[in-house]
Amino acid sequence: MRRMSLPPGAPRRTEIEVAVEVRYAETDQMGVVHHANYLVWFELARTRLCRETGYPYADIEQLGYLLMVVGARLRYRGGAHYGDQVTISAQLAKLGSRGMTFAYRVRRGETLLAEGETDHLWVERQTRRPCSIPAPLKEPFARLAGSSG
Amino acid sequence: MRRMSLPPGAPRRTEIEVAVEVRYAETDQMGVVHHANYLVWFELARTRLCRETGYPYADIEQLGYLLMVVGARLRYRGGAHYGDQVTISAQLAKLGSRGMTFAYRVRRGETLLAEGETDHLWVERQTRRPCSIPAPLKEPFARLAGSSG
Amino acid sequence: MRRMSLPPGAPRRTEIEVAVEVRYAETDQMGVVHHANYLVWFELARTRLCRETGYPYADIEQLGYLLMVVGARLRYRGGAHYGDQVTISAQLAKLGSRGMTFAYRVRRGETLLAEGETDHLWVERQTRRPCSIPAPLKEPFARLAGSSG
Amino acid sequence: MRRMSLPPGAPRRTEIEVAVEVRYAETDQMGVVHHANYLVWFELARTRLCRETGYPYADIEQLGYLLMVVGARLRYRGGAHYGDQVTISAQLAKLGSRGMTFAYRVRRGETLLAEGETDHLWVERQTRRPCSIPAPLKEPFARLAGSSG
Repeated sequence: MRRMSLPPGAPRRTEIEVAVEVRYAETDQMGVVHHANYLVWFELARTRLCRETGYPYADIEQLGYLLMVVGARLRYRGGAHYGDQVTISAQLAKLGSRGMTFAYRVRRGETLLAEGETDHLWVERQTRRPCSIPAPLKEPFARLAGSSG
Repeated sequence: MRRMSLPPGAPRRTEIEVAVEVRYAETDQMGVVHHANYLVWFELARTRLCRETGYPYADIEQLGYLLMVVGARLRYRGGAHYGDQVTISAQLAKLGSRGMTFAYRVRRGETLLAEGETDHLWVERQTRRPCSIPAPLKEPFARLAGSSG
Repeated sequence: MRRMSLPPGAPRRTEIEVAVEVRYAETDQMGVVHHANYLVWFELARTRLCRETGYPYADIEQLGYLLMVVGARLRYRGGAHYGDQVTISAQLAKLGSRGMTFAYRVRRGETLLAEGETDHLWVERQTRRPCSIPAPLKEPFARLAGSSG
Repeated sequence: MRRMSLPPGAPRRTEIEVAVEVRYAETDQMGVVHHANYLVWFELARTRLCRETGYPYADIEQLGYLLMVVGARLRYRGGAHYGDQVTISAQLAKLGSRGMTFAYRVRRGETLLAEGETDHLWVERQTRRPCSIPAPLKEPFARLAGSSG
């Protein structure tokens, strides 16, 4: 996991990277990683990114909130193969009062394999009703988005 | 699987439906089906739809062609639960000379759970190079799209 | 789903069968269904078998109990391919006071593809502590096992 | 990944360890990792172990051979949770002329979560016929097993 360095003083959007080794089970008979697994990789990167707020996602769920996925868009550029080392980068692309959008890139070395976004809404865990971003998370997520310089 | 009935003579876009029972393994700790599984369901419906051409997708691969996924968009409207009976409908939304776009809806009874599209390009299996739609498949897929009424 | 017919009057062990169509995502680069998916199929068949008790597994969880998997054994005899229609049969092989063992077979037509067993213990959902079979389930599961003729 | 240290001179069975972070998609509605995923983790560890021979498994497949899974046994001791760091250790437990058995342990810190074995047979990739261990792999795998001190 590495953070991008940006000019000091500038509002910084945090970007993290996670590395995974492609698992045999992730391939399909086409010989490349099945396209559904990219959503699983995105989620792994999102998990790491959220951890940067100081509120790991597991803790957020225990606070009584869920960050429900309401949309996803993926663009596939190349295949990942069994045993490949790939890196998934994630950043908070858009922060709203009731949800947010994350953006991702999957690379093998310099080769872009896929990119995409996922849209999320805050919901109360018990009721599954949409809600505003929980107060204690407001500032940490704003920092992720680089919107509170 | 059922086909939509349309006025005779009109160009008909074929729509098929497949029913699945939600598997325990498809749920996640949120208690609903993990969002990546919808791509797997879309694919199952796409498989059935392609079968309507008379060329099951497995045969297409053996002919030496692959219908590579290059894009996917999903919009989630509600959660599917373990044991639910859901239906996935698929149709060929857009047919090009080198690829196509399928559209899907996932429903539990009358409730829409998710909808989305996937974009595909024809590639030669050996070279993985993009190619035009294989000649014998042209007319069958045009029929699916309802474009050769 | 079909039930095996046995001589009337004999203690009957219930056996059910479920049919699945092999999904593309279930294959791996070897061109056959990845071996982990058989556990998912076993579970699907177990779900159907439990439903025969009149207490679908989803209801059992809502009663406050879980049937935790504590062991699994699989023997693979042949590969399943994309698009194959396979059937998974399940029966309750061994019924104890605190758990049970289910047995499974996966077939394509007459060809046996895999067989196996899974071991389960009853646990209280809240505490995750092992417990005895919940009283209302005793008789229904005994009937499944054919042990209360 | 670490290798166990053993008295010098003794025949050494290689043991490797891989670390994984539990993915959200790996959990099920019970709130723990779905039991089928342990086979995926075993495979990941087996991949790393095979790499110790100097013949990564991807290369073995390209040589024209597959190490087909013919059996698996799992014993579950405890649940793994989303975000947990778990380690999977693998070793070659039994080496035969036509196949082998690997043994695995999954741990979170000192807590054993699961253990198991998988049985494999060598097959020719084209024909899918069982065969003897490919000549160039004999010695490297014997070294893994610690049988050629």
